[in-house]
Amino acid sequence: MKQDETESLSIPAASEHYATSKAEEVDMPTTGSKVYVIDKWLLGRMLEAAGNPPLRVVLWDGQEVTTSQSTPVARVFILDRGGLLKLVINPDLYFGELYSAGRIQVEGDLVDVMETIDQALPDFRHRSLWTKLIARLYLLRRNTISRARDNIYHHYDISNDFYRLWLDSQMVYTCAYFPRPTLSLEEAQIAKMDHVCRKLRLRPGEEVVEAGCGWGSLALHMARHYGVKVKAYNISKEQLAYARERAGREGLDDRVEYIEGDYREIKGNFDAFVSVGMLEHVGPHHYRQLGEVIDHCLKEKGRGLIHSIGRNRPAPMNTWIEKYIFPGGYPPSLSEMMNIFEPWNFSILDVENLRLHYAMTLRHWLERYEAAADHVVDMFDPAFVRAWRLYLAGSIATFATGEGQLFQILFTRFNNNEIPWNREYIYTYR
Amino acid sequence: MKQDETESLSIPAASEHYATSKAEEVDMPTTGSKVYVIDKWLLGRMLEAAGNPPLRVVLWDGQEVTTSQSTPVARVFILDRGGLLKLVINPDLYFGELYSAGRIQVEGDLVDVMETIDQALPDFRHRSLWTKLIARLYLLRRNTISRARDNIYHHYDISNDFYRLWLDSQMVYTCAYFPRPTLSLEEAQIAKMDHVCRKLRLRPGEEVVEAGCGWGSLALHMARHYGVKVKAYNISKEQLAYARERAGREGLDDRVEYIEGDYREIKGNFDAFVSVGMLEHVGPHHYRQLGEVIDHCLKEKGRGLIHSIGRNRPAPMNTWIEKYIFPGGYPPSLSEMMNIFEPWNFSILDVENLRLHYAMTLRHWLERYEAAADHVVDMFDPAFVRAWRLYLAGSIATFATGEGQLFQILFTRFNNNEIPWNREYIYTYR
Repeated sequence: MKQDETESLSIPAASEHYATSKAEEVDMPTTGSKVYVIDKWLLGRMLEAAGNPPLRVVLWDGQEVTTSQSTPVARVFILDRGGLLKLVINPDLYFGELYSAGRIQVEGDLVDVMETIDQALPDFRHRSLWTKLIARLYLLRRNTISRARDNIYHHYDISNDFYRLWLDSQMVYTCAYFPRPTLSLEEAQIAKMDHVCRKLRLRPGEEVVEAGCGWGSLALHMARHYGVKVKAYNISKEQLAYARERAGREGLDDRVEYIEGDYREIKGNFDAFVSVGMLEHVGPHHYRQLGEVIDHCLKEKGRGLIHSIGRNRPAPMNTWIEKYIFPGGYPPSLSEMMNIFEPWNFSILDVENLRLHYAMTLRHWLERYEAAADHVVDMFDPAFVRAWRLYLAGSIATFATGEGQLFQILFTRFNNNEIPWNREYIYTYR
Repeated sequence: MKQDETESLSIPAASEHYATSKAEEVDMPTTGSKVYVIDKWLLGRMLEAAGNPPLRVVLWDGQEVTTSQSTPVARVFILDRGGLLKLVINPDLYFGELYSAGRIQVEGDLVDVMETIDQALPDFRHRSLWTKLIARLYLLRRNTISRARDNIYHHYDISNDFYRLWLDSQMVYTCAYFPRPTLSLEEAQIAKMDHVCRKLRLRPGEEVVEAGCGWGSLALHMARHYGVKVKAYNISKEQLAYARERAGREGLDDRVEYIEGDYREIKGNFDAFVSVGMLEHVGPHHYRQLGEVIDHCLKEKGRGLIHSIGRNRPAPMNTWIEKYIFPGGYPPSLSEMMNIFEPWNFSILDVENLRLHYAMTLRHWLERYEAAADHVVDMFDPAFVRAWRLYLAGSIATFATGEGQLFQILFTRFNNNEIPWNREYIYTYR
């Protein structure tokens, strides 16, 4: 009676890639520099500290080193001694830098390489004291590196044209929701917006505030399909211009107001508060303040939903991503997120973890990104192309291996009894 | 397209009681003791600090005091000066003691009175400095009272016969799950067990460990309907004897083993860990240790579910309940619960809050309890009957007013990708 329905679930394995990175043709250097015993010893110690991922490492003179008993998933080329030394000193930071610069190259699938590295790393308990010590040093170092760099590619410095190349047609730059894994990215982003709106139980005529609205698609979706009025806040001028133009074109500018400002500038009283993909940029020291803003702006029977990348436990962000891709970004653990809610006596109704949906979303993005790589080279330069490829492939690995989480948290005031009796309503709309 | 399904949800209001406490015929005392101005002043200050709940208070000479502008929901009789003084000193503790002893009596519905008190109390921000100070003193005091008492009615000192009077036929003493509010208590307890089993995606042949199994019904349900083998731990000899006898009678003793021991004594490797209504007794200082136990006993692809009373933020338990009903009990907030999971890198998949289901469950229990009150008097004494009436009525108020939460937390190891693709499977079994 009860067993059969659990069997019928289709679970996409992490290895089922919907997209793979482009295969590289590795250019071996012709410097003729020799590989010394000390070079190979250093490489061995570094790989040991990394948990001996099943990779074949090729050094600049063509010598190959295989660490693990398992079959190597790819060949990783380290093309000069300087690169090897940087990698030994701080692999978290310099792997990304060296890969972007083409001084590390990968023959095989980059996503596989990143997953392999992530999977080898965390199993701390069974390592020797020596490798534990080295690995702990790396972990410590993550927090202290903050050197100046000139070639920082911030998210917000990049033109809308860049994102248009590989996001869905509505420019939704957050985790999608795939009711079935076979959905297209376009369908899955719409399904995500409906998933959020259904959880919030939006009703026609209600007023909604959105903190961090990106290119504005969720605000328009709520107004069009749920009959609500929306005030959507954002600090990116380029995104706001795009969103306002679209609202006007689609005749929704009487119901959706895009406001330049961050969450601390929210004013008014609303039936629902929603924030999708903003919390990653808020920083844990401001969570209590974010909760205060919500406490001020939410009506007595108001509901709220926060959708954010998270972690299983507090941990620093990868140094390279923090430095080159998401300056100031921090994905919190649930205990850290509770600082938004507990000081203001909010009641958590529902927490859902969608990490495999983010791995799937990122696979779609990477596939589109690779298809548009020639355009990206024209817009920027080869190092930029490689940096974003690594970021997307590495993020797939983060979510597929269980290092990264995606939490949707639904909440309301403690004394609001107009809450759904159970969660069937989220799943019985068809 | 999307609005209608949200309207169709039936939400039972907190005031829709499925059970009410028995109406009392108040015995006024004949001591002839006078009420002084100081008595009424003290009563006024206490009611002010309590947020002026809409109650009519009757003192021992028959004088009535009404505090709120709203229509009083009931008359509360304080039948002697000693009682009033105790109430002023520590209402949290002494309201229960005095009510149990019959020195406070209630004319009207006890559940209404408790809800009214809970609703008046928490709105801290709008009170005067003086009442805030008094109220803060009360809050502080909650932690420091620990006087010896002789007449403690512990949960585990009471016979199975007592619980049989008012629990469901399977003796499930935890929050039920009502897919529809009209379900009977029996049906809702079975629905809860299925809800837990479905979330855990139990498969035939799997091995399950249960920490804190009560009278054993969930273990038997899992073995019978999901084809699993269960080791169920408990420290109550009386519950274990009952559970073992039932397993033998129902021919399930080859698949369900009841073991005398607490969660720290769990040995073995299991596909699923489940604990329903035990965490309240564990105490927050032991959460990390509980997580370690789970980390040791869970197989690589294992899943876990913890079902527990909780709070929106860390707060002490009501002094009277802690002292008379649940010694050592502590309902944690989600941030506190995360100490079970985060040190061991568990991944939270799903958190569901079922607080209104607990209010409903408790209403069923109170209704059955009142129907059996004459038997309880025969088994114990009138003070015991009143104490348990107050506990059940007060608990309804706690969950109905949003002071108490009921969390079900589903989790697995961080790197387990054999997780449900979404949560539809919990709701599409019919």
